[in-house]
Amino acid sequence: MKPLTGVCVGAGYFASFHLDAWVRLRDVRIVGVCDRDNSRVVAALAQLDSAQPFSDLAQALEETQPDFVDIITPPESHLALVQACSGHVSAAICQKPLAPDFSTAVEIVETARNAGLRLMVHENFRFQPWYREIKRLLKAGVVGRQVHQIAFRMRMGDGWHEDAYLERQPYFRKMPRLLLHETGVHLIDVFRFLAGEIVDVHAYLCRLNQVIVGEDAGVVACRFKSGALGILDANRYNEPNYPNPRLTFGELTMDCDDGTIRLYGDGRITLQQLGSEEEPHHYSFSDAGFAGDCVYSTQAHFVDCLRNDREFETDASDYLRTLEIVERAYETAGPIASAPVSPGDAVERE
Amino acid sequence: MKPLTGVCVGAGYFASFHLDAWVRLRDVRIVGVCDRDNSRVVAALAQLDSAQPFSDLAQALEETQPDFVDIITPPESHLALVQACSGHVSAAICQKPLAPDFSTAVEIVETARNAGLRLMVHENFRFQPWYREIKRLLKAGVVGRQVHQIAFRMRMGDGWHEDAYLERQPYFRKMPRLLLHETGVHLIDVFRFLAGEIVDVHAYLCRLNQVIVGEDAGVVACRFKSGALGILDANRYNEPNYPNPRLTFGELTMDCDDGTIRLYGDGRITLQQLGSEEEPHHYSFSDAGFAGDCVYSTQAHFVDCLRNDREFETDASDYLRTLEIVERAYETAGPIASAPVSPGDAVERE
Repeated sequence: MKPLTGVCVGAGYFASFHLDAWVRLRDVRIVGVCDRDNSRVVAALAQLDSAQPFSDLAQALEETQPDFVDIITPPESHLALVQACSGHVSAAICQKPLAPDFSTAVEIVETARNAGLRLMVHENFRFQPWYREIKRLLKAGVVGRQVHQIAFRMRMGDGWHEDAYLERQPYFRKMPRLLLHETGVHLIDVFRFLAGEIVDVHAYLCRLNQVIVGEDAGVVACRFKSGALGILDANRYNEPNYPNPRLTFGELTMDCDDGTIRLYGDGRITLQQLGSEEEPHHYSFSDAGFAGDCVYSTQAHFVDCLRNDREFETDASDYLRTLEIVERAYETAGPIASAPVSPGDAVERE
Repeated sequence: MKPLTGVCVGAGYFASFHLDAWVRLRDVRIVGVCDRDNSRVVAALAQLDSAQPFSDLAQALEETQPDFVDIITPPESHLALVQACSGHVSAAICQKPLAPDFSTAVEIVETARNAGLRLMVHENFRFQPWYREIKRLLKAGVVGRQVHQIAFRMRMGDGWHEDAYLERQPYFRKMPRLLLHETGVHLIDVFRFLAGEIVDVHAYLCRLNQVIVGEDAGVVACRFKSGALGILDANRYNEPNYPNPRLTFGELTMDCDDGTIRLYGDGRITLQQLGSEEEPHHYSFSDAGFAGDCVYSTQAHFVDCLRNDREFETDASDYLRTLEIVERAYETAGPIASAPVSPGDAVERE
């Protein structure tokens, strides 16, 4: 089988996870890496067998004629890059956030559609192995056929220092919308994956660490089309009570008509049938790469869809519905509180 | 010290917890028990040293001239009983729900105020020993001075059978509002106790078990005056993963500016300072009576306030604010879904 060839654009922090996965996907070959910062391109090429360096995507496309482009740049650049892809390549996969704002996301989807460009969002959380396993358990009816409630608690603990986010993702500090736009969106997508369409949402948001511009804490309540209820309880300031906050990013509880599925912060899944005790559910996952190797699984899905002409699970046009939920959550929450919770205001002292 | 004398009106399921606590409060003597059902009065009197049986409160008041009345009847009767108390006794303590609806609750408060009747709501959850301890830890600044987020997950597991609630509290099945009105209200009060006033709330509710009239599942998101965020994630259908659902009724997480306090379903409290691991916090509590002996503590507070002319923590007029939050939650949720979540609607099958 002839390998699919790809060009990666963007060689920052998260690109190394993409490259690592592409290298392990045997029927894929990355033929070019493009970034304005040459030192980052050089570092990226060291991860690959052989690929050409580029500083301009149009030139990379012309010289390598790849089967796809992998867009791994900040959201501000995505529209221009999708435009650059259009008419020159048949498929692209693009990191999230898809765009800085919802209307640009719509424009990106329309640009791709008009150009016949198949565009998948690199929404990797739903490809984490525990969610694939939970979906399988749900489909098999192991805890029933109805979802009652889905609740996710996310505590990242990487946002309380004065130097919060500087080391890994410094642009987080300047994002006008952080928690839901950048991180929570993953869980909204997971909710849709596990419990179907969301028809109503209401959020409360606030900024805890004043070194950043956007919000770093929030609660999002929602109702699904099925009647099920959902809760995302998230903050990046406070810490979780398990060692690696970046494996599952939090804990999930799914209550169903015959019992409950729980996901713990170390990737453990348990099942509890009504009337019975909680029992461990045995399954295995790889802890390579990022968050249960979900980047690999995301890209494997992309390749599988290209090879077999199947629809992307996170096709950009479908993903707009996830972004609509996030948009609506921000609308209901109103302006992000510009002040922290007042010391002593909540807790009276003696 | 002359004992305070009291008359109990209502001798149903929960009254035995009240009587047990009154008996253990040494400077209190229950002089009368009143219930229309004589067999229940007889059973109640067996718990007491000596008290007279009554079927009518007015007669009981006239004959025993007590210092206070303890109202332990269903909400529909509370207004008439508070009216019966007015002018004949100086203080009363009344079980919750305070009234069938908010406007009747307001009428009860006004009736008591006009009659100079000191009226405390028997809101016992905030008197559970773990909440008193958590409040102490907050006041001492053990995990900081700001509350960021407060989240409670309640899974009772007593509402999924066809005979749900029949054995203990059969009237639950006919209540048009169940989960928040009857049970969730406790946690709204606990939230106010631990994190201050609530200024905004939004809820989603549904009925899971179709044998009942009201709702048995819901999520309530709220914002506190301080800026803190709150979540109540509750259902009486699905089961918790600890042995006794009626000790703490669920699990609490309180994120603060210097760390996190967690309450587990077995009454354990843990502390986690920012940058440190979760550690057990040692304290002791009694497992006598109901839910950490909170009925005893509630009534001890009532007696202390009567003896020392202190304000009740859950004075009925203050409690109206808790009821306003509950009322507003129902308003935002709209009509309780009359259909269960549709089988297979949320979870596609292969």
